[in-house]
Amino acid sequence: GIIGINIRPAQTTLAFADLDARFLAQESFATTQDPKHFVVELIPRIQNLIRARPEITCEGIGVSLPGRVDLGTKRLVFAPNLGWSDVDLKTPIEKATGLPVELENAANSCALAEIWFGRHAEGVRNLLAVTVSEGIGCGLILNHQLLQGSTGMAGEFGHVALVENGLECRCGNRGCWEVYASNSAAARYYAESTSRPRKSRNGSGRAARNVQFEDLLSLSEQGDAKAREAVNRMAQQLGRGIALLITGLAPDVIVVIGEITRAWPRVGPIIAESVKRNSFTRAETRIVPSDPSSQPRLRGTIALVLQKHFGAPSVA
Amino acid sequence: GIIGINIRPAQTTLAFADLDARFLAQESFATTQDPKHFVVELIPRIQNLIRARPEITCEGIGVSLPGRVDLGTKRLVFAPNLGWSDVDLKTPIEKATGLPVELENAANSCALAEIWFGRHAEGVRNLLAVTVSEGIGCGLILNHQLLQGSTGMAGEFGHVALVENGLECRCGNRGCWEVYASNSAAARYYAESTSRPRKSRNGSGRAARNVQFEDLLSLSEQGDAKAREAVNRMAQQLGRGIALLITGLAPDVIVVIGEITRAWPRVGPIIAESVKRNSFTRAETRIVPSDPSSQPRLRGTIALVLQKHFGAPSVA
Repeated sequence: GIIGINIRPAQTTLAFADLDARFLAQESFATTQDPKHFVVELIPRIQNLIRARPEITCEGIGVSLPGRVDLGTKRLVFAPNLGWSDVDLKTPIEKATGLPVELENAANSCALAEIWFGRHAEGVRNLLAVTVSEGIGCGLILNHQLLQGSTGMAGEFGHVALVENGLECRCGNRGCWEVYASNSAAARYYAESTSRPRKSRNGSGRAARNVQFEDLLSLSEQGDAKAREAVNRMAQQLGRGIALLITGLAPDVIVVIGEITRAWPRVGPIIAESVKRNSFTRAETRIVPSDPSSQPRLRGTIALVLQKHFGAPSVA
Repeated sequence: GIIGINIRPAQTTLAFADLDARFLAQESFATTQDPKHFVVELIPRIQNLIRARPEITCEGIGVSLPGRVDLGTKRLVFAPNLGWSDVDLKTPIEKATGLPVELENAANSCALAEIWFGRHAEGVRNLLAVTVSEGIGCGLILNHQLLQGSTGMAGEFGHVALVENGLECRCGNRGCWEVYASNSAAARYYAESTSRPRKSRNGSGRAARNVQFEDLLSLSEQGDAKAREAVNRMAQQLGRGIALLITGLAPDVIVVIGEITRAWPRVGPIIAESVKRNSFTRAETRIVPSDPSSQPRLRGTIALVLQKHFGAPSVA
């Protein structure tokens, strides 16, 4: 079996999967702000998961993170949405469990999962995974290989400035794609449209600002005009960045991963229209949503261990 | 020997090189607007070059273009700065000469030339070539391989919209990087600053608009403040796009190719400063100018034939 750990800013999910990436058990807990406390909370949960299935040998642990892992040191070095920097998760987990730990950016592991488990045409050569959550990540499979880049930093298109002198991003830059097209962006659009200026000092705006993206999606599905408008704006901005990726990299397929895929019948056409308006290219790129029921982020953690220990099926 | 043909909007250069990519003969002529007339002019020039050196066997012809060549049909499909579309150059040249013709985007062939002939650290894995001329092209060597992408369209970062609702580009899009950072952009900046509004109707603005980029560089070197300011603005905008490339792809090295490299001692720091201001990444990317005396665009055409016929030295 394989232990997969998917760390997100609000919540961390652990799962125990068999080698076919079927989840045999899984649990979640609130991600602790302090990384040291987080590790202290995480380790006994891993140990319990392993102990609960004594008949299954555990091969390794895959961890996916909303950030970048230095190729050399294997430390988490860049994770603005998590608020962590320069954290070593690998050593303490390996010490406590005796198992090899593979750490990878969430978008990279999703891209690997798409190659391992995704239903794509045989031999798809260039595939980008775009994870849309609190931020935006990109995993780049180019010429059948994961692009890691200098010290492991490739794929940070979420932090490309799409708006000159735009809103400040948690990365320190301004106008980043993810500031306009992430789940957080949609929540902000909604808060802006629902907060009544006169009352904003006594906190009504603040309450709206804290709307969860999943609630926003539900409101939108129920026909709430302001929720719908917020999701539409997010989809348009998603299209702008996807246009950039298609213009520059001309992949065969872009897979979008995240809660937004639940609303695909409605947002898919908005994204497609925005891509068309914002790019002029002869590349023939398909834009497809991942299947949310397959838990792509969690499955990505399993792919990390599979590809390390068993070799990739089509990644050279 | 190898025949290399470097097509640019204003001028086409032909060269005869030995297998070490030393140029034995070379000549230039004005690029004919109509592609059919162009081919009619080009073919006898190729034949003369070959006939002049009867002692050298010609192995093939490399052609580099400011546009994209469809991987399947080998036709030129996207060349806004040339004004050509859907042109077959390969068949008529092969028919007339009996030699195999390799066609490739100029930036792609420059990237290959950098890998073949460039003075980079052994085994550089990720190298981007940014050609700055009438437009901007990007050749992407990622994981030691040239990225071609779906139907050969990868690398059109010059046509990524850096300015929302910006100036119209010859590609049909608005606000493209090359509209703000190419040689043509610098010429426009200069024209804008030198045209006197009162006299603009009788054409003084128009004269300034036609300044050649090489003249602009010379004026700038001679201390002309407006020329200097135009080149500075171009360098700042070059930095914005390079910041995007570093953020997204985190290459080991970016090689800048074009007339601008002549002014590198002055523009290099401006580009570096702009990259720093516009990106927040831990990637460690070196930004270096190609050596203009090595005629990188022309050498790129030789690399095209070498890599096809002799296999790449480090490109897998």
